[in-house]
Amino acid sequence: MTTSVYNRKDRASVDTLRLLAADMVETAQSGHPGLPLGAAPLLYALWSRFLKHDPQCPSWPNRDRFILSPGHGSSILYALLYLCGYGLAESELRNFRQWGSRTPGHPEFRVTPGVEATTGPLGHGLAMGVGLAMAARAMGARFNRPGFTLFDHYVYGLVSDGDLMEGVAAEAASLAGAQSLGQLIYLYDDNHLTIEGGTDLTFTEDVRARFLAYGWQVIVVADGEDLFSVHQALENARADRERPSLIMARTVLGAGSPKADSPKAHGEPLGAQALAATREFYGYGDKPPFFVDERVAKNFATRSRAHEAARLSWEALLANYAQAYPEESRELNRRLAQELPELGEPISFPTGRLATRVASGQVLNALARKLPELLGGSADLGPSNKTSLEGLGSFLPLTPTGRNIHFGVREEAMGAVVNGLALYPGIRPYGATFLVFADFCRPAIRLSALMGLKVIYIFTHDSVGVGEDGPTHQPIEHLASLRVMPDLTVIRPADANETAVLWLELLKRPGPVALVLSRQDLPVLPLEEYPALWAGAARGGYVLSDSEGEPEAIILATGSEVSLALAAQKLLLGQRRVRVVSLPSWEIFAEQSQAYRESVLPPRVTARLGVEAGVSFGWERYLGERGQMVSIERFGSSAPAARLFEEFGFTPEKVAARVSGLFS
Amino acid sequence: MTTSVYNRKDRASVDTLRLLAADMVETAQSGHPGLPLGAAPLLYALWSRFLKHDPQCPSWPNRDRFILSPGHGSSILYALLYLCGYGLAESELRNFRQWGSRTPGHPEFRVTPGVEATTGPLGHGLAMGVGLAMAARAMGARFNRPGFTLFDHYVYGLVSDGDLMEGVAAEAASLAGAQSLGQLIYLYDDNHLTIEGGTDLTFTEDVRARFLAYGWQVIVVADGEDLFSVHQALENARADRERPSLIMARTVLGAGSPKADSPKAHGEPLGAQALAATREFYGYGDKPPFFVDERVAKNFATRSRAHEAARLSWEALLANYAQAYPEESRELNRRLAQELPELGEPISFPTGRLATRVASGQVLNALARKLPELLGGSADLGPSNKTSLEGLGSFLPLTPTGRNIHFGVREEAMGAVVNGLALYPGIRPYGATFLVFADFCRPAIRLSALMGLKVIYIFTHDSVGVGEDGPTHQPIEHLASLRVMPDLTVIRPADANETAVLWLELLKRPGPVALVLSRQDLPVLPLEEYPALWAGAARGGYVLSDSEGEPEAIILATGSEVSLALAAQKLLLGQRRVRVVSLPSWEIFAEQSQAYRESVLPPRVTARLGVEAGVSFGWERYLGERGQMVSIERFGSSAPAARLFEEFGFTPEKVAARVSGLFS
Repeated sequence: MTTSVYNRKDRASVDTLRLLAADMVETAQSGHPGLPLGAAPLLYALWSRFLKHDPQCPSWPNRDRFILSPGHGSSILYALLYLCGYGLAESELRNFRQWGSRTPGHPEFRVTPGVEATTGPLGHGLAMGVGLAMAARAMGARFNRPGFTLFDHYVYGLVSDGDLMEGVAAEAASLAGAQSLGQLIYLYDDNHLTIEGGTDLTFTEDVRARFLAYGWQVIVVADGEDLFSVHQALENARADRERPSLIMARTVLGAGSPKADSPKAHGEPLGAQALAATREFYGYGDKPPFFVDERVAKNFATRSRAHEAARLSWEALLANYAQAYPEESRELNRRLAQELPELGEPISFPTGRLATRVASGQVLNALARKLPELLGGSADLGPSNKTSLEGLGSFLPLTPTGRNIHFGVREEAMGAVVNGLALYPGIRPYGATFLVFADFCRPAIRLSALMGLKVIYIFTHDSVGVGEDGPTHQPIEHLASLRVMPDLTVIRPADANETAVLWLELLKRPGPVALVLSRQDLPVLPLEEYPALWAGAARGGYVLSDSEGEPEAIILATGSEVSLALAAQKLLLGQRRVRVVSLPSWEIFAEQSQAYRESVLPPRVTARLGVEAGVSFGWERYLGERGQMVSIERFGSSAPAARLFEEFGFTPEKVAARVSGLFS
Repeated sequence: MTTSVYNRKDRASVDTLRLLAADMVETAQSGHPGLPLGAAPLLYALWSRFLKHDPQCPSWPNRDRFILSPGHGSSILYALLYLCGYGLAESELRNFRQWGSRTPGHPEFRVTPGVEATTGPLGHGLAMGVGLAMAARAMGARFNRPGFTLFDHYVYGLVSDGDLMEGVAAEAASLAGAQSLGQLIYLYDDNHLTIEGGTDLTFTEDVRARFLAYGWQVIVVADGEDLFSVHQALENARADRERPSLIMARTVLGAGSPKADSPKAHGEPLGAQALAATREFYGYGDKPPFFVDERVAKNFATRSRAHEAARLSWEALLANYAQAYPEESRELNRRLAQELPELGEPISFPTGRLATRVASGQVLNALARKLPELLGGSADLGPSNKTSLEGLGSFLPLTPTGRNIHFGVREEAMGAVVNGLALYPGIRPYGATFLVFADFCRPAIRLSALMGLKVIYIFTHDSVGVGEDGPTHQPIEHLASLRVMPDLTVIRPADANETAVLWLELLKRPGPVALVLSRQDLPVLPLEEYPALWAGAARGGYVLSDSEGEPEAIILATGSEVSLALAAQKLLLGQRRVRVVSLPSWEIFAEQSQAYRESVLPPRVTARLGVEAGVSFGWERYLGERGQMVSIERFGSSAPAARLFEEFGFTPEKVAARVSGLFS
């Protein structure tokens, strides 16, 4: 299928990629020419001879994926997309890094056809590729049938020194080894340089030995300019279906430019003179910027049409699949379209006491039966996070239909891997850990939000209610730190019933969700007693329990503090007319009409008390100038939870006293 | 010096540690018995035969350090401290994990004498040890003289599977290899179990090969119960002064208990019955909880006095050092006492335009001459962060007096390593990266704050002012996400002069500081024109430019938006009496008297406009109900900075219009 003969046309194509990228950076007067100049041969060999894609159908489900983990090299990716016919006009190359262009500084998912993931934060591209490869395996395991190999593609990527230094990449590489992801193949742009100098300054490790230790195949290419060697390495990488492969190709940063092999080639335009010299070096001295030779254009056009037939026959296969496996076909089509099936009413919990993590576990298990696309797990805290799907098996190399992923104690990679899974239509992934360790996932959560990926983060043990484990394990600032992030929905249900309602809501959110749950048991709020709960929770905020007659004061609370607010309301009966508002999701509440929001929080009622076991930062928007807050403005402490709540002022008596205090 | 003969007294000591730990967990009805039961022999061999410490003087600068990276095993550390005579009473063991005890759930720095670092978030203990070892080397390089070996101790630690799965540990281990930290020795409690099951589920990598790849010595101990083998391994680890050592000792989680070798032994009390069986197994079936045999008590007492003579002779050496090297001695004593020298007035910048990162670089370089304890660097962004100390060399194995640390592209480990450096009296560390990558450091920043460590985080490229690199590199929510953290001081200076003033202030802060700096040039605010700046910036917030006559409106801004506020004020001259308040540090401002704060922000002036190029979350506290905000509530975009500021409403005209709008 592939040909290993590379001729002058190929070299011209490689050099055209280089110069287009350098021209883009020069025109923008901003960007990174070094990587494109050095890594162009690697990418050319991959894209011209191996990458199974069809620019006419960038969403072909069984296409190979390509991830540019060092996203700062974006210009060469755009040059590839331009030459391959992804509908990116030359004007877009000239408009590199400008307002409104489809060629932003780093590749952005959804902005440019053919860009599979937003990359830039190093290491994350590598880790997202691991997620994509796991997704491909899961889809294949679910849907492939004899004669119907619907999913069998590769996931390729380019990675840099910077990627390989990042911890998230180390975590993901170890996981990829454990998962035997033979369809994962990375080209390592091994140029021996970082921004501060040579890799000998601080990156002296034996990368080859490290990746072998993870269970990868490692192939060394002594000269990254040698297309034939790169080609052979890719062949060998593809041949090993049991181990992920790292192709270490020695390259030269800024190759062919006067700044070659210097950190200066990395992150700024070459400058007119150096660019002219580079153009000269590659034999295009007499050509203008953005020049593309006709035979180069034709070469790319031909090469990128090479898989059209494969794509068409895949579509035919899919059509036949509908005949042969109608049920699977319906499920597949629904999942690829990212449509939810009918999920019915939320589970309702009658009474008693239940931690919201436990309620969530029950809801998740019920949903998993209806939503085969749900796939996820925990960073080694499944039994605590209550995220195990009972009876649905572990997702392991020999059991690829398993639905429980064991991420290991690797929170950041978990986040990046669920991002990779979510990039795959047909998978609805979730990842879980303690809320306090959301900090470890934060770079991944930001990418989920930036890409608008429907990732579900399940964060349990959500306050000092954690108890004895102490301040290292007690979230204080975490709710606030998540609420500040654009395009992330934070949900902290008050009880089992809010948990059930909001699980159904969160599935409909356009982007990532952080579901924040208690470790400790909480009173179930019976629906008979609190009829507003079902509809109200789904709106992010509502009157859970109103006063008889016009309220004088409002207690606003979330999560475990809602029951406390109800208890305080009860204590104040006959003294103060108190309304209790539950605010499980500020983001969803903010989307409601002003009229609705003001019906819940009437502006005239200025006596307001917020109650949340964390910092008050941000609560001012609900409390106004007269309002006060029962909060925790310091790190926690090691003690039984009940003692901590008492010490920090979270008792019905103390909350009631604070309400009374609003009137003094 | 050490003896490798282990007898029945030693075994009894090991078993006493085990049972004390299990008794603590049982009494608390909370905690982790598995690790202590399995790892007791490793810790006993280390503490009884190698660890150079003197419980009578826990702050002896040349003591060996011990870090329990899996902090959940705290009970055995407390048992060791109790038996070694660190002044921890038996009642404290009985009070394990209770409010106000000195035996919290995870070890906490400053709470318990002998606890060298707060641990619990996995991987961070390992990485902090790397920082401690680097600190020890730096101190030795600076102060050791022929005949005066003041600093030559080891840094030991225990690490678990969980630690080794974490990316931060991978980053730190790679750095430790590059740094040839021969004085760093970790015992790996290799028990093959994690919470979700066997390590074969997801941790199949060859740990030995991985650490060899990092440049470590790796020593395998087939049976962690074999004190003699552990002893030999420690001898061999100490003998290699060029490579850090990992001693992989096969242990059994929960050894000797009926739950041995099961995840159930990890994180909950054994239960009365299983504990009784365990006590029986170790031959103490007839003894009460917290029983310590007399010969065991005596054994620990003797062993822990073994280094008293060494400590006393070190102190004598230090006294002689004062004679032989009076200047070095003065510096050493000052640094060990963590006192600042006289630093004089801040640098003043006359006029012009300067990025605050550039101003910071100049101030830092000037300070570094006066503060030899300043040691730090960047996560491979030195040239961008402007954190290189010119002419002061790189901190590398062959140049240990160098002052510039090359952390590599390892932000989280950088944070953990600066924490380790800051745990060492005599070092004032700093670490730098882009503000957007503060997310990667966040778990470390939290530990800095929790421990009250004087770490300086330098975060540059602090807004959409980053420009073309786009949303992956543009902080939006990061100022807010840092401000929510307890005990962290966030500082965002408006110009070069505020930068200079606040550098002197930040050195006096009791805990960590995040110094947030612009990439782009900003107008210098000349002191002649803005005489309030010097005193005002040091108070965290002040009237930078007042209206003539009573202000009608106040513009509040920080960092790069302060000049914008001044420009808007100018546009409104003659129309509105506008005061401009610069708020470089909310935390410092909050510490000022109410009278001062109200003099800056008089309650009667309710027409307020906040201007900050990030989310508005949290600003309500300054703006009140009538106030408004020019903010950015979405992710950024790739374009030149000027264009972005215009698109997002950050121009003098638009800000002035927003002020006028407050009155309509």
